[in-house]
Amino acid sequence: MSEKTEKNQKSEAPFKTAISQHVDEASYVRGYALTDLIGKVTFTEQIYLLLKGELPTKEQRTVLDAMLVACAEHRINVPSIVSARYAYSAGNTFNSAMAAGMLSIGDFHGGAIDNAAKMFIENVDKKEAEMVAMELKAAKKRAPGYGHKVYTTDPRSAKLFEVAKQNKLYGKYCKFAESLEAALEKTNGRKLCLNVDGAVAALLCELQIDYRFGKGFFALARCAGIAAHVLEEAQIASPFRTLVDEDVEYTGVKKRELKR
Amino acid sequence: MSEKTEKNQKSEAPFKTAISQHVDEASYVRGYALTDLIGKVTFTEQIYLLLKGELPTKEQRTVLDAMLVACAEHRINVPSIVSARYAYSAGNTFNSAMAAGMLSIGDFHGGAIDNAAKMFIENVDKKEAEMVAMELKAAKKRAPGYGHKVYTTDPRSAKLFEVAKQNKLYGKYCKFAESLEAALEKTNGRKLCLNVDGAVAALLCELQIDYRFGKGFFALARCAGIAAHVLEEAQIASPFRTLVDEDVEYTGVKKRELKR
Amino acid sequence: MSEKTEKNQKSEAPFKTAISQHVDEASYVRGYALTDLIGKVTFTEQIYLLLKGELPTKEQRTVLDAMLVACAEHRINVPSIVSARYAYSAGNTFNSAMAAGMLSIGDFHGGAIDNAAKMFIENVDKKEAEMVAMELKAAKKRAPGYGHKVYTTDPRSAKLFEVAKQNKLYGKYCKFAESLEAALEKTNGRKLCLNVDGAVAALLCELQIDYRFGKGFFALARCAGIAAHVLEEAQIASPFRTLVDEDVEYTGVKKRELKR
Amino acid sequence: MSEKTEKNQKSEAPFKTAISQHVDEASYVRGYALTDLIGKVTFTEQIYLLLKGELPTKEQRTVLDAMLVACAEHRINVPSIVSARYAYSAGNTFNSAMAAGMLSIGDFHGGAIDNAAKMFIENVDKKEAEMVAMELKAAKKRAPGYGHKVYTTDPRSAKLFEVAKQNKLYGKYCKFAESLEAALEKTNGRKLCLNVDGAVAALLCELQIDYRFGKGFFALARCAGIAAHVLEEAQIASPFRTLVDEDVEYTGVKKRELKR
Repeated sequence: MSEKTEKNQKSEAPFKTAISQHVDEASYVRGYALTDLIGKVTFTEQIYLLLKGELPTKEQRTVLDAMLVACAEHRINVPSIVSARYAYSAGNTFNSAMAAGMLSIGDFHGGAIDNAAKMFIENVDKKEAEMVAMELKAAKKRAPGYGHKVYTTDPRSAKLFEVAKQNKLYGKYCKFAESLEAALEKTNGRKLCLNVDGAVAALLCELQIDYRFGKGFFALARCAGIAAHVLEEAQIASPFRTLVDEDVEYTGVKKRELKR
Repeated sequence: MSEKTEKNQKSEAPFKTAISQHVDEASYVRGYALTDLIGKVTFTEQIYLLLKGELPTKEQRTVLDAMLVACAEHRINVPSIVSARYAYSAGNTFNSAMAAGMLSIGDFHGGAIDNAAKMFIENVDKKEAEMVAMELKAAKKRAPGYGHKVYTTDPRSAKLFEVAKQNKLYGKYCKFAESLEAALEKTNGRKLCLNVDGAVAALLCELQIDYRFGKGFFALARCAGIAAHVLEEAQIASPFRTLVDEDVEYTGVKKRELKR
Repeated sequence: MSEKTEKNQKSEAPFKTAISQHVDEASYVRGYALTDLIGKVTFTEQIYLLLKGELPTKEQRTVLDAMLVACAEHRINVPSIVSARYAYSAGNTFNSAMAAGMLSIGDFHGGAIDNAAKMFIENVDKKEAEMVAMELKAAKKRAPGYGHKVYTTDPRSAKLFEVAKQNKLYGKYCKFAESLEAALEKTNGRKLCLNVDGAVAALLCELQIDYRFGKGFFALARCAGIAAHVLEEAQIASPFRTLVDEDVEYTGVKKRELKR
Repeated sequence: MSEKTEKNQKSEAPFKTAISQHVDEASYVRGYALTDLIGKVTFTEQIYLLLKGELPTKEQRTVLDAMLVACAEHRINVPSIVSARYAYSAGNTFNSAMAAGMLSIGDFHGGAIDNAAKMFIENVDKKEAEMVAMELKAAKKRAPGYGHKVYTTDPRSAKLFEVAKQNKLYGKYCKFAESLEAALEKTNGRKLCLNVDGAVAALLCELQIDYRFGKGFFALARCAGIAAHVLEEAQIASPFRTLVDEDVEYTGVKKRELKR
């Protein structure tokens, strides 16, 4: 494709990728033969390799495992699970039902990771946590990754940072995240705990994974829980789930005649 | 909810689940405190626990890791990756783009796993592989999980079964799958190799994971590759990907006037 | 692109379409300038034009309108609506929430249209309705498009066929569909009414629209209802909808310790 | 549900809706019996009724038809169509493929409608268009709904406003939108035409449809085009569409050995 003399010929390939290639009908992922990876690396190592281009150290793998486990499942009540079970119950395919679940992740469900990570990156080397807390207060903005309706300390965050310390991956982002938790309490007069989104965000930064991956990280991890719930729906539930009438209140206009 | 005297009261909970519960605001997955699992189990062990209710043995985990790695990524050219990259490029969220990719898994892309596993389960204890091959031929049906446009031996299948043998999980389903490969060659006069879908199907059976999970298993594994490709799209591609005109041929009616 | 001497050059365009083209930066739909269509044709006429390549007669348009109206909305309780509202409530985009709703259409929700239409096409010129009813009974198969948990006559089907008659589009498919309703009652000893899926299927046949469009037709029509419900969710509901605890019963193992 | 003495009883219905209800097993949409609507209202009228609660006047219907027609289809090259065709080609269901298409609508594809409408609403009664143009310039922000890579006048916008005028729905929002087009040219020294997104946004305001519906409106309209393309894919294309190799450039690391 070096010469571009003919009209209509593409100047360059529309898709560029550094993730995988085929050579002589065999797949190479980040340079490694797929058949070499099978049996030698874990799924988590493969995920790391796919995202970052290199295999993780034992410490990086352990922390990534902890992060994925922390987000894989929480409870049935949340939108990502309910939507997936409804979708499957209507008689759709397994993967489509999982996709419906994934579409129920959003700003209010796994959605603070990217914004929290962005905030850490933008401030960690430039500002004290207290200044960030005051700026947020002045701007009347919530700190993404902080606060929980019940917890004053999110036990998942504590656990994740403990694992990070054991694996020498508790670095400046984690430290900043914890300083900001203290600063927010000082500034606002009440505790706003670093929640699991915020802790995952700090660890994504420590692993130098692009913050824009935030909602994708949560989707990838939660995919495991969604899959288990769709399988349970397939195994135990009758098809065609509907809301029971008592869960619905009609608030609209009364029956009326169409004058046509 | 023991008494049901009032009209409109639900007789039973519409959602039943054995996967997770909250006790005192803490999440328990299959009985284990989520905070105990974080840092102690790998993502693959969590996946197994979620799907099956118990943690895997080291051997089961190793085989499941191999299966997930085998399906996580293959190449950029396939529908699951292309759709996801187009979706992200139009300015949608990360998780929605991943869902678009997941919707491009189907009968022709990761889709033979469930049917192959079903075929193994229905026949393994009842029929010889040769009889199954002959019945398929008589019914003019393709054996799901067999055949590849290039390979006469699928190196991923070989590798997966090697890992299964090393981990004492090469059992009657794997054996049957390989017998059927030989029987199909004998019956049809040409090699139809056990492809990666077929090998994964046999291993799902060995791990006693419900065959209906087939397309879901592929979706869960491929989710890792989809995530990496969407991240790469975010990092290197300009927004709003479109087909180049030379890839399109218009075959419709010529310009015409609307007479109204 | 007539010569294929260079290696790597495509032999033909991978996408062929007769639906639309651009000429001098202007869009032509089925040959008509898009700017001519705007203001002169209705959305329903545009749908017909897109699907079939020609604008409908007044009668065809009226029947297609009736079919779309019949499927656009039914009630909030169904999976397509519930999933969409959950998805939006989690903080996802409007179009992603609509997609989640569309993924909750399936074999048990709008899903009988394609199979019913296929059955009509395969039999209408070959077999009496009574024979089809007997064959279905012998095969222990349900007739797709027949039966309703409450109705003995589906009022929507009756209405649709009335509109078809008024517009001279009640033809052999409608007739066959009604004969089969009578034949099923005779064969099974109880009424299995032609439901709305079945009536729409017969009318798709009368309009000579490909039966494979079945689930797509329902998705297109229901899209209107889904859109209205997502908008209502945006307007009146608080974010992050979750199942209330009383709707969930945990059936799994009790709290247990992780021995690691 | 007036008394809430029992523990665990819901205080109120989690779903409230004014869109539809069932009375004696019959569906009522915005108060009208569904069976009365079938055959008497067009799909576009039903859409308007669903969204707004009342049937449109003839003028409102005509303008809404024009808006839907303007957005229903443009060309095959765009993400919403390409993703849908890839998804179907992989062997997924018709509705899932449509959903994949809908997920490829986003900020860069149909995505300016909501922001443009918001901008019109916030400014129409408060500021001159010239001030808005200057503020945008000072803030280095693009005006949503303005600009096109080719057009200096978007013929679809012109047509839509012509239809609005004919139907007495060219009001203050349309006027403001056109003033802003002139003001942007004056402020920036070059024409930034009101594009189809901007014109649709102004008309949504004239019809008093919530601006948050923006991406949903485009999704609903484009659904028709997506449906036609998926049907064409079903009819003429072979399964399993893949990128051709010449469209891909591998930019990653070379083959390397896995040292484990």
